[in-house]
Amino acid sequence: MSADRPGREPAGLEQEFALACPTPIPPGDTILLGHGSGGRLSSDLLRGIFLAAFDDPELRRLNDAAVLDADGIRLAFTTDAFVVQPPFFPGADIGSLSVYGTVNDLAMVGAKPRFLAASFVLEEGFATKDLERIVRSMAEACRRSSVRLVTGDTKVVERGSGDGVFVITSAIGTVPDGIQVAPERTRPGDVVVVSGPVGAHGVAVMSRRAGVAFEVDVESDSAPLTDLVESALAAGDVHALRDATRGGVATVLNELAAAASVSIVLDEQAVPVPEPVRAACETLGLDPLYVANEGVFVGTVGPDGADAVLGALQAHPRGRDARIVGHVEPGAPAVHLRTSLGVTRPLLMLTGDQLPRIC
Amino acid sequence: MSADRPGREPAGLEQEFALACPTPIPPGDTILLGHGSGGRLSSDLLRGIFLAAFDDPELRRLNDAAVLDADGIRLAFTTDAFVVQPPFFPGADIGSLSVYGTVNDLAMVGAKPRFLAASFVLEEGFATKDLERIVRSMAEACRRSSVRLVTGDTKVVERGSGDGVFVITSAIGTVPDGIQVAPERTRPGDVVVVSGPVGAHGVAVMSRRAGVAFEVDVESDSAPLTDLVESALAAGDVHALRDATRGGVATVLNELAAAASVSIVLDEQAVPVPEPVRAACETLGLDPLYVANEGVFVGTVGPDGADAVLGALQAHPRGRDARIVGHVEPGAPAVHLRTSLGVTRPLLMLTGDQLPRIC
Repeated sequence: MSADRPGREPAGLEQEFALACPTPIPPGDTILLGHGSGGRLSSDLLRGIFLAAFDDPELRRLNDAAVLDADGIRLAFTTDAFVVQPPFFPGADIGSLSVYGTVNDLAMVGAKPRFLAASFVLEEGFATKDLERIVRSMAEACRRSSVRLVTGDTKVVERGSGDGVFVITSAIGTVPDGIQVAPERTRPGDVVVVSGPVGAHGVAVMSRRAGVAFEVDVESDSAPLTDLVESALAAGDVHALRDATRGGVATVLNELAAAASVSIVLDEQAVPVPEPVRAACETLGLDPLYVANEGVFVGTVGPDGADAVLGALQAHPRGRDARIVGHVEPGAPAVHLRTSLGVTRPLLMLTGDQLPRIC
Repeated sequence: MSADRPGREPAGLEQEFALACPTPIPPGDTILLGHGSGGRLSSDLLRGIFLAAFDDPELRRLNDAAVLDADGIRLAFTTDAFVVQPPFFPGADIGSLSVYGTVNDLAMVGAKPRFLAASFVLEEGFATKDLERIVRSMAEACRRSSVRLVTGDTKVVERGSGDGVFVITSAIGTVPDGIQVAPERTRPGDVVVVSGPVGAHGVAVMSRRAGVAFEVDVESDSAPLTDLVESALAAGDVHALRDATRGGVATVLNELAAAASVSIVLDEQAVPVPEPVRAACETLGLDPLYVANEGVFVGTVGPDGADAVLGALQAHPRGRDARIVGHVEPGAPAVHLRTSLGVTRPLLMLTGDQLPRIC
């Protein structure tokens, strides 16, 4: 963990970083752990190196999944590398996580998952029984997600050149007719919803990490979101969805604000944070708004349908604790937090490497 | 490299392993480098762990790419993890390799590449300029392959938990109407073709590997095969295609023999092996038939159209050295090599870890 806690910089820096998507800082000479955090450094690396080389309009949208026309049908396509450490943690493991994480990226564009591909990078000496356990967990997650694993690859690297197991999944979904969900559809007047309590995944993983491990009654929220999203889409005018993984709710809201060129106001007291998560975060010096979730999304909804969407979410077992947590205003792209003390301050993207290897 | 050289076992073992797809040996307690070799151990791991958990008919076909129906269109879907060491080598690098390798898997089912996804697992401390070079190489390879990179992910692991850079690509292709190319379509009477000279990729990578490096005038054959395959498909009755990557021509022919339940006879003298590759293989104690290629495929073709297919291949710049190298017979699934000495012996799957981390 870094001492560099986002949103806690002195006032001068806050001003400098207040824009949701500031001019990228060029990456330095070497890759840092923070480049994988999902926050500011990840975004700068993406824009400084990847977007500089690949000038594709769909890639440039930086959405959770690309939405593509293939001979008249709308496909969604996404990939994620899972390097979570440790690979087994309360409530889930790298196997189920690699399925739900990718299926959820499809759900964030309103797609139904269809086909999954999985690549494994194994370290020589990895226990075969652990691999079997991971693969069985993936198979169960595929069943729960109604997705077929249809192709795969396995590579092995020498001892010391990997870290047990990395799982890289990609998935194809199909987007039903009439569904249009995209970050840039967010507009002033929208209501911001969060689909469930935040922070559980990150705390569950950290509670088992070597050198930090502690006792806490928190399980990862890792779960498929397809059904929950379908309920929301059927209930009202959902504009944008994003699952609050690396970088947490704060980072994801900054991404939505940047994509739609709007200002988002988040009401700190409205965000559901389970008490054990809050306590663990205080002990670890973490802000729950930056902790990764693997079964929680934020969404922006047109104001007229917001109550219906909230009701539909709360009627679903995984959306019971859904809340309206903020609203969208016109203005320069930024996120502001109305704190429990009644003051409002900029809520920045994650800037350090608060929780490396959390997914 | 292992002393365990395939096809060189004493006669008793040869008999035991003569079937192209023998009963899998259960994986031991830990993962070995050989489990990533693409040969016998990879196959056993795949069948012992992955197929045991995922009972999907398309996965079970073990094809280079899955062919899937999505709302009436035929999609091809594939994934590959690239862990080649070193990442830069004569003629190519991990960037272009990760594009061509995946595009070529699509070509092997007759699909046109459409969309690519790329995940990166970077080790903390990896040089940013090397990442930039890799990404630029990928972009150029995408242009040459007419495929769009539309989505991606980047993760970073701590120093010592990775090995510089791993690139994992997945791709979607569309299969044109009327195209039916699949290993199980191979039948007795078919002619076996190889699209180009074999062994260059493996030798080029080994020539730059730490601890083995040597001077040799060989460049990797890494290249996109889509055009070459299109020419072949238009010219005659191509039944099956497989790119001869990990495990080389010998392993791939064993896979075709197993999938189609046929016996394949390979004429050793007909296989084009460039002289510098042959010399390097002799020095390293390798058999060129087991060395990985990244721009060469083997195919089975109905006898009537074989000359036309060979002519079409030879008319293409990357198929100039295409040859008819064998034929298919009825019989138990196996591959036999007619050697330059006129004797015939079983040609087994790669059984050891001849060239770990070659792609």
